Amino acid sequence: MEQIALTLAAKQTVHPIYVGAQAHASLHEWADLSCKTLILTDDGVPRAHVEAIASQCSNPVIMTVLQGEGAKSFSVFSDVCEMLLSHKFGRKDLLISVGGGVIGDLGGFCAASYMRGIRFINIPTTSLSQIDSSIGGKTAINVHGVKNIVGAFYQPELVIVDPDFLHTLPRRHLNNGLVEAVKAGLIADSALFDLFEQENPYDHLTEIIKRSLHVKQHVVENDPEEKGLRKILNFGHTIGHGVESVYGLSGLLHGEAVAVGMMPMLGSDSLRERVARVFEKIEIDPYKPYDVPQVLEAATRDKKAQGDTVSIIVVNEPGEAIIESISFDRLAQIMREGHQ
Amino acid sequence: MEQIALTLAAKQTVHPIYVGAQAHASLHEWADLSCKTLILTDDGVPRAHVEAIASQCSNPVIMTVLQGEGAKSFSVFSDVCEMLLSHKFGRKDLLISVGGGVIGDLGGFCAASYMRGIRFINIPTTSLSQIDSSIGGKTAINVHGVKNIVGAFYQPELVIVDPDFLHTLPRRHLNNGLVEAVKAGLIADSALFDLFEQENPYDHLTEIIKRSLHVKQHVVENDPEEKGLRKILNFGHTIGHGVESVYGLSGLLHGEAVAVGMMPMLGSDSLRERVARVFEKIEIDPYKPYDVPQVLEAATRDKKAQGDTVSIIVVNEPGEAIIESISFDRLAQIMREGHQ
Ligand SMILES: NC(=O)c1ccc[n+]([C@@H]2O[C@H](COP(=O)([O-])OP(=O)(O)OC[C@H]3O[C@@H](n4cnc5c(N)ncnc54)[C@H](O)[C@@H]3O)[C@@H](O)[C@H]2O)c1
Ligand SMILES: NC(=O)c1ccc[n+]([C@@H]2O[C@H](COP(=O)([O-])OP(=O)(O)OC[C@H]3O[C@@H](n4cnc5c(N)ncnc54)[C@H](O)[C@@H]3O)[C@@H](O)[C@H]2O)c1
Repeated sequence: MEQIALTLAAKQTVHPIYVGAQAHASLHEWADLSCKTLILTDDGVPRAHVEAIASQCSNPVIMTVLQGEGAKSFSVFSDVCEMLLSHKFGRKDLLISVGGGVIGDLGGFCAASYMRGIRFINIPTTSLSQIDSSIGGKTAINVHGVKNIVGAFYQPELVIVDPDFLHTLPRRHLNNGLVEAVKAGLIADSALFDLFEQENPYDHLTEIIKRSLHVKQHVVENDPEEKGLRKILNFGHTIGHGVESVYGLSGLLHGEAVAVGMMPMLGSDSLRERVARVFEKIEIDPYKPYDVPQVLEAATRDKKAQGDTVSIIVVNEPGEAIIESISFDRLAQIMREGHQ
Repeated sequence: MEQIALTLAAKQTVHPIYVGAQAHASLHEWADLSCKTLILTDDGVPRAHVEAIASQCSNPVIMTVLQGEGAKSFSVFSDVCEMLLSHKFGRKDLLISVGGGVIGDLGGFCAASYMRGIRFINIPTTSLSQIDSSIGGKTAINVHGVKNIVGAFYQPELVIVDPDFLHTLPRRHLNNGLVEAVKAGLIADSALFDLFEQENPYDHLTEIIKRSLHVKQHVVENDPEEKGLRKILNFGHTIGHGVESVYGLSGLLHGEAVAVGMMPMLGSDSLRERVARVFEKIEIDPYKPYDVPQVLEAATRDKKAQGDTVSIIVVNEPGEAIIESISFDRLAQIMREGHQ
């Protein structure tokens, strides 16, 4: 028997994120736009935002898919790949996502897969995508209603976060994304949580976005493939994902579900009260009632493989998160009692 | 404007390849098979080979797709992902490809994408896949007849090359794969080419496979993402891919097409004669006539993006390859004249 060891060294990579008012207008200063460029967007993103990007590209092709979670599907994934093929995109050409988390996740997976990876730039236009989903390289589509089950880790070469794009975003979506900023504060940045407690968050959007991005940067840098630390980003998400699976189809948004999932994972009633007051400021109801057995089933569905335990994240003090492994029974109890 | 630099350190990874008679029987010594395991194969692979793998796994699920290039499609890709989902595969579960290059490419892309990457082991059962396609991490499916246009770079944690599996392989497929070994000798290992010239290749299959794998290992280690050196593996493939696109549907195999593409890229008539004699030994016709304009069109189709030039690999002496960039016109001339 002979053993040949294929040894692959890998290099450090750097992925800049530009944050600031009108940042989008400088895209051409930061990226080579002389190649073929597919601009992927959806029909809910205001056309002016898309045009402002396309007008900087030498050879833009705009592809607009139907808005909503349905775009994260095998069929739209293959449509985008076929579009790239029909325009004879090559390995050095570029895909730019201009939209929310849906377009970022879909576009990222297409860019990762077409010719085994072409250039990718992400220009998030919702608060959720600016605060959270555009950073970290997670891309994915959904299968049979199971979210993010097929995808890739693929880092955009550049992310441009322009808070001015949020002016057109419906208030409910704006608030939905802010939940992830509250989460970032609670798990890793007490000053960010203070800002939510003490100020009017809508007056400090750029600062909130920047602080949240720094939290995500720090966590992702230390655990790019979600083997350990990165789990703290899932604060509120164990129950939150369950709530989202059950009530998402009837219109509950991701952040709205995560807020519900965060409350029982806070370490004390006093902290729970403080967090509830913050959510009130951003018009989020963290005490939405839900069907415990149904949500439990949904929250634990994909976890059965790992033995009958589940990771939860607990916050006792703003800025510090603890990872714990608990049984399904204990999780059910936490859900019923509303605290851990 | 604030710039946040997301910096990702990367680590070295090692991917063992075990080569030897009956190697497949030791799979359980090298890999943890206590998890859920999808064994992906096609209906042309003898069932005994598949069972010999499945019997070593604690929780095997066998999925058999229709043999042939058609399995490398969006629809089969999504079928496999749905199968993984329906059996509730988790991140730490395993996919094993047992088959030729088709099953390796398809299974690798599924393993790369499901949950953004699960464990993957490749057990190639054709000469082509043992000599070439199972090493290097290239995985892909085809779109609208364009080969390998959607996929991922994803390294198997383990490759097991068992030459005993080749006993059941039809002679024509065996020979088809040997073309890639002749290629490996010509571009990087003159002793391997000597072996083809001086011995009966069928008496030295294990040695031929091992030497070819060492060539591929060396090249891939030095250029994992095909940015430079790895291009030498494309010796014969520029014209070969064109020939394959045009005549593949009527039954010409990959290696058979590549052999045709290699001849004009040899540096002298005397070397051409030596290589032709080697091909005669392995029952390959490297002088199959083809339609030049049609093959030229197919060979250059996806290269128009990079300006009107194309890379070719030239071999003047066995064991040494040179990369050149030439115009489409020059390529047409080489095809017409049969030499460069
Ligand atoms: N990749 C990750 O790490 C990650 C993290 C969290 C969430 N996600 C994913 O993100 C998705 C949700 O993202 P989302 O909340 O941004 O939803 P979304 O992308 O569906 O956007 C919400 C709506 O806002 C519209 N819109 C976008 N920009 C606008 C603008 N500037 N003005 C007006 N309307 C605008 C869109 O058309 C859409 O209808 C989910 O699929 C979720 O799985 C991914
Ligand atoms: N990933 C890479 O780096 C790479 C490199 C070269 C080629 N490829 C791909 O490889 C594919 C071709 O691979 P291939 O030539 O192995 O074809 P294949 O996988 O179609 O196998 C050829 C035939 O042999 C049958 N078979 C497999 N093992 C057998 C065995 N032990 N006994 C009897 N029959 C057996 C199969 O059922 C099939 O019908 C192409 O899709 C090509 O694009 C990939």
